[in-house]
Amino acid sequence: MTKVAVFGTGSWGTTFAMILTEAGNEVTMWGRRAEVTEAIDRDHVNPDYLPGIRLPATLRATTDPERALAGADFVVLTVPAQSLRANLAAWRAHIPSGAVLVSLMKGIELGTTKRMSEVIHEVAEWPQERVAVVSGPNLAREIAERQPAATVVACTDERVAARLQAICHLPPWFRPYTNPDVVGVELGGAVKNVIALAVGVSAGMGMGDNVSAMLITRGLAEISRLGAALGADAHTFAGLAGMGDLVATCTSPLSRNRTFGENLGRGMTLAEAVAATRQTAEGVKSCESVLELARKHDVEMPITEVVVGVVHDGMSPAEAGTLLMSRSPKPERYGL
Amino acid sequence: MTKVAVFGTGSWGTTFAMILTEAGNEVTMWGRRAEVTEAIDRDHVNPDYLPGIRLPATLRATTDPERALAGADFVVLTVPAQSLRANLAAWRAHIPSGAVLVSLMKGIELGTTKRMSEVIHEVAEWPQERVAVVSGPNLAREIAERQPAATVVACTDERVAARLQAICHLPPWFRPYTNPDVVGVELGGAVKNVIALAVGVSAGMGMGDNVSAMLITRGLAEISRLGAALGADAHTFAGLAGMGDLVATCTSPLSRNRTFGENLGRGMTLAEAVAATRQTAEGVKSCESVLELARKHDVEMPITEVVVGVVHDGMSPAEAGTLLMSRSPKPERYGL
Repeated sequence: MTKVAVFGTGSWGTTFAMILTEAGNEVTMWGRRAEVTEAIDRDHVNPDYLPGIRLPATLRATTDPERALAGADFVVLTVPAQSLRANLAAWRAHIPSGAVLVSLMKGIELGTTKRMSEVIHEVAEWPQERVAVVSGPNLAREIAERQPAATVVACTDERVAARLQAICHLPPWFRPYTNPDVVGVELGGAVKNVIALAVGVSAGMGMGDNVSAMLITRGLAEISRLGAALGADAHTFAGLAGMGDLVATCTSPLSRNRTFGENLGRGMTLAEAVAATRQTAEGVKSCESVLELARKHDVEMPITEVVVGVVHDGMSPAEAGTLLMSRSPKPERYGL
Repeated sequence: MTKVAVFGTGSWGTTFAMILTEAGNEVTMWGRRAEVTEAIDRDHVNPDYLPGIRLPATLRATTDPERALAGADFVVLTVPAQSLRANLAAWRAHIPSGAVLVSLMKGIELGTTKRMSEVIHEVAEWPQERVAVVSGPNLAREIAERQPAATVVACTDERVAARLQAICHLPPWFRPYTNPDVVGVELGGAVKNVIALAVGVSAGMGMGDNVSAMLITRGLAEISRLGAALGADAHTFAGLAGMGDLVATCTSPLSRNRTFGENLGRGMTLAEAVAATRQTAEGVKSCESVLELARKHDVEMPITEVVVGVVHDGMSPAEAGTLLMSRSPKPERYGL
């Protein structure tokens, strides 16, 4: 039986642990707070992150990283992106040497502009062919309620990707596709929140479905240009971890980034929008690091630029729209 | 001054004629019914198709094809797809020999499974390098209300595409991109309605944004496989005429195909759904010809197959979902 450790007890980590358990693996979750791990281990619930969902009785959870890691074939990492470096440094001594490290995290490390798999490779000193990522249109709540979903499992070693696909494939509920392009799969998940902010701003201004579809499509074009500069395969962005995740995030009324953008589009200031949603949307933080990464690589990202302008530099949404629509006429595909 | 004839007075044809006129061209529309052409020519309105929208005073309209075509540099065709062959045969003698023929139409000819530009090439005996198509996320009503929009103008001769781009570029309102891939641009517009039916069915069954995004993404993957078999460029499908139009059509609450699918997903029969919407959605007609085209070229289109099954062969929506989710595990990109 394959042994899997899942680090992190958020909604997506817990849902993925459910899938792995039901697919026949021996799964142990690690969490920081004993009340959460005990609820999972003993009562088979995670009321903080998945209220009302029954977890499998055989799913284990602990606050002891060494116990979670003992004998693990796969180690799934799903902690907050900015805490990965410190956490992983503490755990690495206990990770079995043959294990595959799997990232479910979506983010770019502030300061270093590194992707999560790069941080894992660097901090754990783990070979790239045993670092994998999972990303796709995977709103956790919908999957936990047993709606069908599909995702992408990416690893530079296609045999490792196929092994990971096999342990989380659970027809007709959960369908993973393999892809060797780790960079592209990871980038799609990290940049989508910036585009969702832009779609929200336009909806807040009263714009309709043409404008949303245009921003989603040209947003994906600029993610693809950045991806090309970083060595990603352009086709990945047409897939579930690219357009799939982008479409789900930009069109879901549940998306925090979209809602935050809507408030800005209606005329709220940044401070008012933060007050209204009681938190800062992920795209607000990451738009600057994405733009920094793009400038390092000389990539044009016009939508990301106006998002940074509106969010951080006092540009009005109307001015942002006019700027985007007044660029010089172009072929649809350039910089790729 | 560039002269343009626009054949057809529907909502998108009229909106595109507005754009061309305001961009500084001399535009004459042709329509079958005198009450429509007179309303456009004299009263600057088209109450049947664009109620409440003021048209430019310099936009002309006539029921006389010869008068519309006199001296035209561009001839824009926007009549019902299945009537193109007969109409064009009647007009062709009057088309100036140097003109560029432009299709705004989205459809596959029943029986022949030909695209609109193929019908134009064949019936008018016009060289392919002077046949162009325009397609993108262009819900006419939103554009007529002066919301910004972008589209794709495609022609195998890139200089002709650039000329067409120049005459309809109207910043900051309307932004055309060029693309040399006529086959891909046309196919995106023709197949999207089938996928919108599938998205509607899933929404009618109570499924959420993951499932919609998955159907849109894997729908685009099967359109891309068909495109590859027909010689299209896979990148076109990641653009405005591919994913852009698909996303707008699948997510807009105004989409007839989506609404029709929702009714099927809620358990209505085909007859009940037709009665509820008082018309047959385009995808209901075209799903069979798309599948016929796919089989001719040995292309797998699993979503189109289950749409045909649900719409025409009595397959239940639940059975369709299980079939799709139970296919063998695959790499994300295959058949391309």
